[in-house]
Amino acid sequence: MQGTKISPLIYADSESNADQLYFSKVFVPDPFLSFGIGKKKYAIINRLEYTRVKKESVFDEVLSFEEWKERTEKRFRKIKVGLSDIIRLVADEYKIRSFLIATDFPAGLALELIKKKIKLKISEGSLFPNRVIKSDEEAKAIREGNSASAAGIRAAETILKRSLIRNGKIFYRKRFLTSERLREKIEIACLKKGGIASHTIAAGGDQACDPHCLGYGVLRANDLIIVDVFPRIKRSGYYGDMTRTFVKGRANESQRKLIATVKKAHGNVLDKLKGGISASKIHNEVQMFFEKNGYFTCKNGDIIEGYFHGTGHGVGLEIHEQPRLSSDGLNLKSGMVVTVEPGLYYPGLGGCRIEDMVRLKHDGVEMLSKCHYRWEIS
Amino acid sequence: MQGTKISPLIYADSESNADQLYFSKVFVPDPFLSFGIGKKKYAIINRLEYTRVKKESVFDEVLSFEEWKERTEKRFRKIKVGLSDIIRLVADEYKIRSFLIATDFPAGLALELIKKKIKLKISEGSLFPNRVIKSDEEAKAIREGNSASAAGIRAAETILKRSLIRNGKIFYRKRFLTSERLREKIEIACLKKGGIASHTIAAGGDQACDPHCLGYGVLRANDLIIVDVFPRIKRSGYYGDMTRTFVKGRANESQRKLIATVKKAHGNVLDKLKGGISASKIHNEVQMFFEKNGYFTCKNGDIIEGYFHGTGHGVGLEIHEQPRLSSDGLNLKSGMVVTVEPGLYYPGLGGCRIEDMVRLKHDGVEMLSKCHYRWEIS
Repeated sequence: MQGTKISPLIYADSESNADQLYFSKVFVPDPFLSFGIGKKKYAIINRLEYTRVKKESVFDEVLSFEEWKERTEKRFRKIKVGLSDIIRLVADEYKIRSFLIATDFPAGLALELIKKKIKLKISEGSLFPNRVIKSDEEAKAIREGNSASAAGIRAAETILKRSLIRNGKIFYRKRFLTSERLREKIEIACLKKGGIASHTIAAGGDQACDPHCLGYGVLRANDLIIVDVFPRIKRSGYYGDMTRTFVKGRANESQRKLIATVKKAHGNVLDKLKGGISASKIHNEVQMFFEKNGYFTCKNGDIIEGYFHGTGHGVGLEIHEQPRLSSDGLNLKSGMVVTVEPGLYYPGLGGCRIEDMVRLKHDGVEMLSKCHYRWEIS
Repeated sequence: MQGTKISPLIYADSESNADQLYFSKVFVPDPFLSFGIGKKKYAIINRLEYTRVKKESVFDEVLSFEEWKERTEKRFRKIKVGLSDIIRLVADEYKIRSFLIATDFPAGLALELIKKKIKLKISEGSLFPNRVIKSDEEAKAIREGNSASAAGIRAAETILKRSLIRNGKIFYRKRFLTSERLREKIEIACLKKGGIASHTIAAGGDQACDPHCLGYGVLRANDLIIVDVFPRIKRSGYYGDMTRTFVKGRANESQRKLIATVKKAHGNVLDKLKGGISASKIHNEVQMFFEKNGYFTCKNGDIIEGYFHGTGHGVGLEIHEQPRLSSDGLNLKSGMVVTVEPGLYYPGLGGCRIEDMVRLKHDGVEMLSKCHYRWEIS
């Protein structure tokens, strides 16, 4: 069978490159070569990582980088061989006719391989199309991520509960409560659940109207506060992603209506999602629902307000991966894992986003996140 | 001047891609386009990130992705335009003759650009050669990273001090102390200093003989325990990296000699490092020093023992970046920041690594990390 099939080829570390982690199931901080032949998985690993990768990874064969480098030098009678030479020898010896590479394969190496007449095919979409369909084991790892998210959100809630209000600002343990301090507590709670949370959002008032603003400075009472927590589980590399919106103090009618509308949109999506449905249909229905309720999306100069992000995105070994629940989305399949996170953002009034994660089934969804929706904290 | 110079081009997020963060000075979680013309920096940003990037980044001009997509559709009379079409329009309108891309530029996009006759030049080495020379501001950010590292190491030390020994194992607060528990405490200490630590090493005994093994299970008294902490400062994206080796209990003579030898090698390197010196000379001298003291490097089957990693590596917006202090290293320059981390690893005896970080000056080094070297904890 060798030589007839196209072989996936990766050159990347497995910390930042999800394909490499999916393929190897081991964390390696520096880029390394891996390839597949049929169902067999191979890696070329330097001596620093060799023993660990052999022990911890799912590679069928771990080749020594130093040995293959030496063999390549002898074979091509060169003193300084590069990665592309080693790959050429691999292709020769394993009778690989062409390699399948991901779009994010390093261009420098790709061009060298092409120069050496090694056939490359760029994968349309993911290098491993199966990555988008999550196994039970993966769903479990993602649930773990969401447990860490929920722990972070509960930590934020607890602090808001224990806080006082002074001069319209939130006051916690002898000091005014800042986004930064709240974020630190959230991230410590995630760590205690085995997850590393980066860029955690704890943003209040108009800051929260920019969905990726992390929040800074003192948090104010009676403002909408968005808490968005997406830790990566250290052991597995899978992410959680969950958002809740709180008010410390008392919400006004406009805030109440905003939150109720986002919550309703969130529930509508959960009711409708299932394998086979169109992602853009889901997204467009949320948009229409908001408009029907008087929440329009428009641009005032540089500032955009209303609903201007996707309704959800895939999550796995990357925090944002396929599929996207947006206007140019594709048909969803059973087994896909997506966030459901409608939100509305109006400077002056504030922002609200409510986010959970589900795995699609043929007749509905399986919730992968769990946390209550009470939001007003007196 | 336009049209005569080569323009750097990046398509990447700025979380995992250090060039993009260096160029933009803003964290954006999804890939985006950026390019330079002379000293001016440009980005093409979608509406979700537009306002924040305009406010927080150092781009001279932030172009709207949606606007440029529409213009590209009109210009090339296509309904579905891709990134390469948009880049083609950019090249046309800004009169850019060719782009400079990094070796890790995504191959898929590079090949599409080449098909569209857009000239690309692959950068030899870094896209921004200046990244290797650290400014005072960068050195300050790296110091901050090392303060977080030191806080983590001190947290580990404190726990070891407060621990008891029971049946040869380390016992802390009603339970045996595992690598996992120690790591959690270290990472919380880093978080409190504004740094996110991943893959922190807290490994004892033979586990520590694999320099990238994180450590797992109960830690034993009288074993060498390597603690290697490399947090990334959340605000700036710069890393710290520091290692100490401890013994809880009492060390034997072989352990004492091992630690003294590594510490001496570490001191020797600090004494010799300066701008202009050869990195491989530094590394080879460490190797020779170890051999002179009876510490040889050899391979027993799959297991390698002795000294088998580089003496140091550059640190900045990446934890491992140029230059490398290894046998194929280049000449070092003033302003470079490198770790100094000799280590020795012998299964049965244990592993020892001592690591600090310095910025090179023309006549020596400036220490960027600070933590004592006491290692035996009774």
